[in-house]
Amino acid sequence: MANTFGTLFRLTTFGESHGAALGAVIDGCPAGVEFDIDLLRRDLARRRPGQALTTPRNEADEPELLSGVFEGVTTGAPIAVIVRNTDQRSKDYSALRDLFRPSHADFTYAGKYGVRDHRGGGRSSARETLARVIGGAVARMLLARETSITIRAAVTSLGGIRSRTVDEMDADAVYRSPVRCDDPDAERRMAAYLEELRAAGDSSGGIVSARIDGVPAGLGEPIYDKLNARLAAGMMSINGAMGFDVGAGFGVAERRGSENNDQFIPAAAGPGTSSNNSGGIQGGISNGMPVIFRVAFKPPSSIATAQRHGTASGDVVEHRVEGRHDPSIVIRAVPVVEAMALMVLADHWLLDRASRGAGRR
Amino acid sequence: MANTFGTLFRLTTFGESHGAALGAVIDGCPAGVEFDIDLLRRDLARRRPGQALTTPRNEADEPELLSGVFEGVTTGAPIAVIVRNTDQRSKDYSALRDLFRPSHADFTYAGKYGVRDHRGGGRSSARETLARVIGGAVARMLLARETSITIRAAVTSLGGIRSRTVDEMDADAVYRSPVRCDDPDAERRMAAYLEELRAAGDSSGGIVSARIDGVPAGLGEPIYDKLNARLAAGMMSINGAMGFDVGAGFGVAERRGSENNDQFIPAAAGPGTSSNNSGGIQGGISNGMPVIFRVAFKPPSSIATAQRHGTASGDVVEHRVEGRHDPSIVIRAVPVVEAMALMVLADHWLLDRASRGAGRR
Amino acid sequence: MANTFGTLFRLTTFGESHGAALGAVIDGCPAGVEFDIDLLRRDLARRRPGQALTTPRNEADEPELLSGVFEGVTTGAPIAVIVRNTDQRSKDYSALRDLFRPSHADFTYAGKYGVRDHRGGGRSSARETLARVIGGAVARMLLARETSITIRAAVTSLGGIRSRTVDEMDADAVYRSPVRCDDPDAERRMAAYLEELRAAGDSSGGIVSARIDGVPAGLGEPIYDKLNARLAAGMMSINGAMGFDVGAGFGVAERRGSENNDQFIPAAAGPGTSSNNSGGIQGGISNGMPVIFRVAFKPPSSIATAQRHGTASGDVVEHRVEGRHDPSIVIRAVPVVEAMALMVLADHWLLDRASRGAGRR
Amino acid sequence: MANTFGTLFRLTTFGESHGAALGAVIDGCPAGVEFDIDLLRRDLARRRPGQALTTPRNEADEPELLSGVFEGVTTGAPIAVIVRNTDQRSKDYSALRDLFRPSHADFTYAGKYGVRDHRGGGRSSARETLARVIGGAVARMLLARETSITIRAAVTSLGGIRSRTVDEMDADAVYRSPVRCDDPDAERRMAAYLEELRAAGDSSGGIVSARIDGVPAGLGEPIYDKLNARLAAGMMSINGAMGFDVGAGFGVAERRGSENNDQFIPAAAGPGTSSNNSGGIQGGISNGMPVIFRVAFKPPSSIATAQRHGTASGDVVEHRVEGRHDPSIVIRAVPVVEAMALMVLADHWLLDRASRGAGRR
Repeated sequence: MANTFGTLFRLTTFGESHGAALGAVIDGCPAGVEFDIDLLRRDLARRRPGQALTTPRNEADEPELLSGVFEGVTTGAPIAVIVRNTDQRSKDYSALRDLFRPSHADFTYAGKYGVRDHRGGGRSSARETLARVIGGAVARMLLARETSITIRAAVTSLGGIRSRTVDEMDADAVYRSPVRCDDPDAERRMAAYLEELRAAGDSSGGIVSARIDGVPAGLGEPIYDKLNARLAAGMMSINGAMGFDVGAGFGVAERRGSENNDQFIPAAAGPGTSSNNSGGIQGGISNGMPVIFRVAFKPPSSIATAQRHGTASGDVVEHRVEGRHDPSIVIRAVPVVEAMALMVLADHWLLDRASRGAGRR
Repeated sequence: MANTFGTLFRLTTFGESHGAALGAVIDGCPAGVEFDIDLLRRDLARRRPGQALTTPRNEADEPELLSGVFEGVTTGAPIAVIVRNTDQRSKDYSALRDLFRPSHADFTYAGKYGVRDHRGGGRSSARETLARVIGGAVARMLLARETSITIRAAVTSLGGIRSRTVDEMDADAVYRSPVRCDDPDAERRMAAYLEELRAAGDSSGGIVSARIDGVPAGLGEPIYDKLNARLAAGMMSINGAMGFDVGAGFGVAERRGSENNDQFIPAAAGPGTSSNNSGGIQGGISNGMPVIFRVAFKPPSSIATAQRHGTASGDVVEHRVEGRHDPSIVIRAVPVVEAMALMVLADHWLLDRASRGAGRR
Repeated sequence: MANTFGTLFRLTTFGESHGAALGAVIDGCPAGVEFDIDLLRRDLARRRPGQALTTPRNEADEPELLSGVFEGVTTGAPIAVIVRNTDQRSKDYSALRDLFRPSHADFTYAGKYGVRDHRGGGRSSARETLARVIGGAVARMLLARETSITIRAAVTSLGGIRSRTVDEMDADAVYRSPVRCDDPDAERRMAAYLEELRAAGDSSGGIVSARIDGVPAGLGEPIYDKLNARLAAGMMSINGAMGFDVGAGFGVAERRGSENNDQFIPAAAGPGTSSNNSGGIQGGISNGMPVIFRVAFKPPSSIATAQRHGTASGDVVEHRVEGRHDPSIVIRAVPVVEAMALMVLADHWLLDRASRGAGRR
Repeated sequence: MANTFGTLFRLTTFGESHGAALGAVIDGCPAGVEFDIDLLRRDLARRRPGQALTTPRNEADEPELLSGVFEGVTTGAPIAVIVRNTDQRSKDYSALRDLFRPSHADFTYAGKYGVRDHRGGGRSSARETLARVIGGAVARMLLARETSITIRAAVTSLGGIRSRTVDEMDADAVYRSPVRCDDPDAERRMAAYLEELRAAGDSSGGIVSARIDGVPAGLGEPIYDKLNARLAAGMMSINGAMGFDVGAGFGVAERRGSENNDQFIPAAAGPGTSSNNSGGIQGGISNGMPVIFRVAFKPPSSIATAQRHGTASGDVVEHRVEGRHDPSIVIRAVPVVEAMALMVLADHWLLDRASRGAGRR
């Protein structure tokens, strides 16, 4: 349902940008997994604003573990983690009570629910992604124990500036880059572009690419819960996501079968393929090759220019939103993309284990 | 779960390409909807092979209604429809028992399940999409009664040949076109290209674009069941789908906020927007503008050239698959894309009606 | 949802008493299970009317397997089975079009859905339980391969006549008894009572008791999917079920803890208990002892006496329903109780296997 | 799933007896419902221990609202409430680390999960029911706004002492009774019996009966989500519940149809029935009469006598658990039974509204 993600490995989240706290409840994580609070802190830090090129909201995002772990190990009971909102400054947003910002969720939330927590976007705020990162961290702990799955994600395109592929990047080096791009040349140009945007009070779209290695063949539940379908749902549920593709993706539209087919080659552990246009998935089931996908994010709607806003009374007014805003979503989206992918994999790994009787490695 | 799609409006499907029958069970369709068997037949005919530029498999695809309708009207009980397989010719496929075709689901199904119905792809066959069309037809009947929602979908790109946009096309005219493209010039070139591919024993990828008009503002269930996330899951679950985007889609990656934001303009029925880069959805909720999306499909893997196949024993062999095959998925995908979108909308319309107390129009 | 039962092992059913067919789709049964069509026929025969002391409706209930099995083995794809209705005689029921029979679902279906298939009760007919038996048979095949679980169920009380306990009965001998009671003395008295009821045009309530042996410790998913909670939901969803209890059941209300507690005793394979008042379940999880429960069924509402019926126009009229009717539900409920229990166990066994990594035996 | 209850109105809970906090997340409550924190406090107080005849654990159970409410009104976002554990005294329980108490969940949790939070029963503690009461309070707020539904529940049987029926009691007067029984004579005898049990270090089983008035006809989703089936699942998921029945319940087993059928009588608002043996439900759908059900609870397993415990090493030892314990579950179960019933009704009311288009009153 609306605020729950997954079938067996399930994340339920709650919280608004300027409410008391954000929270995540992870149900279905097997017992006996070592709970690595430092890993969780690291993942939360990786999406935290207050860094060089993102919004300077300064919060520690300290996770508080409420349940599900005893003597350092998961017990099979639901794992609840909350993060208090400490830097709320609600007064910043009072001007927006009756205004609908262009390309924001203000108008649609107001229309759907009748009432709206307008402070900082309420439930529609990007701050909500914090709870996804908590779920992703637990998925990471589970997968690290049970599989060889590793993921790397990075910004590979920003405002037309393209980097080398994520295949050529290092998972941790990405997070040492202020623009989440392990490609010095592209990183330099992206950073310069973001500074230019900030100065202009504008913003930019971009693409996050991801590669998951070590995915055992056999994950995915046809017909409607194909691995690619679930990844698509997970990624497209992230704020600002406008597109998703796997493997050769939209590029396949112009290709012939003879150039797109991934032909088999002999491999030590069963057949492999000479190319990976399928992105590691066929018929909705992983084939043992790396899972490759991309997510396109729009430029943040909050810009420092005067724009035509809708109002609660049905009028349209010219307005300029005060405050500093993120010039790009993609930088903070990188760990969120990782988190959603890891939860999809953890869920499918459990689903497959149920039907097969032993976890695949 | 795997073979069920939707939360309140739910489709459960079964059947293999060369089994006794394909079937669809629709649960959650409200009572009192007139069941239009001719509409169902029309929709099934629109995806039927045996037409000019698709596989010449000649089956009537006659639907048999087993339950859920009494005196022409739905009763609230599950609606079950089956379609018998009459033209099975299983012997065509015996050579494939121990072979894994490149970029097919043969290898992944065998790996996941241990056993495999290899005849014509079994459950992974595109014939499975027939059951989706049944579900979509019922959704269409429901939405026609309750809303003004209409959909049009078309092939807008095939092997690099691009047509005018789906906005400029007519929903029915699309199906009078053998390539499902209501653009005479593009249609002619696409048809010629498909003939060329057929002669060469090759295939092509393409893009299906869709536009849904009349979607009332307010449909979509944040956070994880956003309208775009559910559409993504539905579309990416179709055989051969490699990418999905909404509104300006992947194009946003190179845009600035100042050019991408959809600014409000005064409109008769509340604010509208001057552009529709959001594709009719903000924060996962429809905003009253047309919902726009695209789905990229790969070139069919079955081509008439010798290719390197995997084998059940782990070897790799050069093999050429006999028989005539579809040079493109997209033509038959058009009504399937419509069906999945209509089911997503019917489901979200019901979900919204539950939370709001009256159906939106 | 309404017509689907289970989480991983899922039964979706459809069909009305006098429609074209009843059907069952089982999704989530692992691949590689030998499909025993004779076992399915046997289970269907065990609930079939047309036997000595039940309704003389004469149908073969021949199952037709539509999907999910290839070369005698499940493939992991959904298993669909339909049974045609051949002895419909709809005209028998035309008098009931605008009448609501006392204690039937006529009134509530009409009120809920607005329309109603009045022929033989439509979807609310006991004939619906046929589809449950199909699902139970597949669960039985799965559990037989993977576990030592066996179930026995029997009529242990009918119109005040009580038999010995189900513990003292033989699973197959029960079905050789026309009243489904493996206790010659009670059987004789129950049969006589049923003849008396038939002559009087009346009916009787009763109790079905069940005992499941070989349930491995560890099945059940606290908090809300406890094994007892799921069994309760399954049993109370059967037509005419009015009560459910486990172990010492309602009898515990008058007991003290000191007499009710199941104390541990040393056993070969870990601790066992000296009594089984818990009915094999503690904290919602099986403890390795036999699972014991009872289901109380009301007397069939269809009796040959004139009764006060409601009408569609809001009136109340005296009416006598023609035709011969079952003097008791419990006889035919026995295999249905088995089926529901087996599906609950199959589902929980898979859920536990997902979380644990190996199936319990 | 395991820790989530409901389909549209969904409760997800977490927390252990001696962890940091208990918590509840309610998803699917429509926007615009006034959030009555005092009602929530009242309901929590009604199940709080530390009262005359229950465990003297002294906690305020102060709810902290974390999300989903803005300016006093629900927003459609998930409502999260936590209650801190302040009186944990974990050292009381250290002796139980490797002991399995008779008829407790100690043994089954240890067997299922491998690890166990043994402090005070961990997740299997009755303290978990606190989170249910939170969910029930929100359901109560919703139902109060939209319907005329009211519920009364009470202890009607305790250790063989039976009170008048719940029909004859007042909902609030029940909570002024220390034994939750609005029948002065029975109350006096029950209280005396509980004192006797406390002195003897023993405990007693009992029955909670409930009656729900104002349930509109039409709630319930056949076949598997019948109103009675969902009530059964909800009630049997409460700690210590051993049996559930509706209407005439287990008593029907000895009845004839001619005495059990609820015959129609003319009524102002459509037909009513002269008796209510069906307990307000037919075919799984409410019929407009009061919904009546009972839940049997076992005597608490924790008694002050030496009993034979299992151990982690497979042995059996004589042991006496220290501390004061509840002589009965039923007293504290009353508000929990109410909470589960209210959530089932809220969920079914929303499900029905989805399929019907307007909420029933």
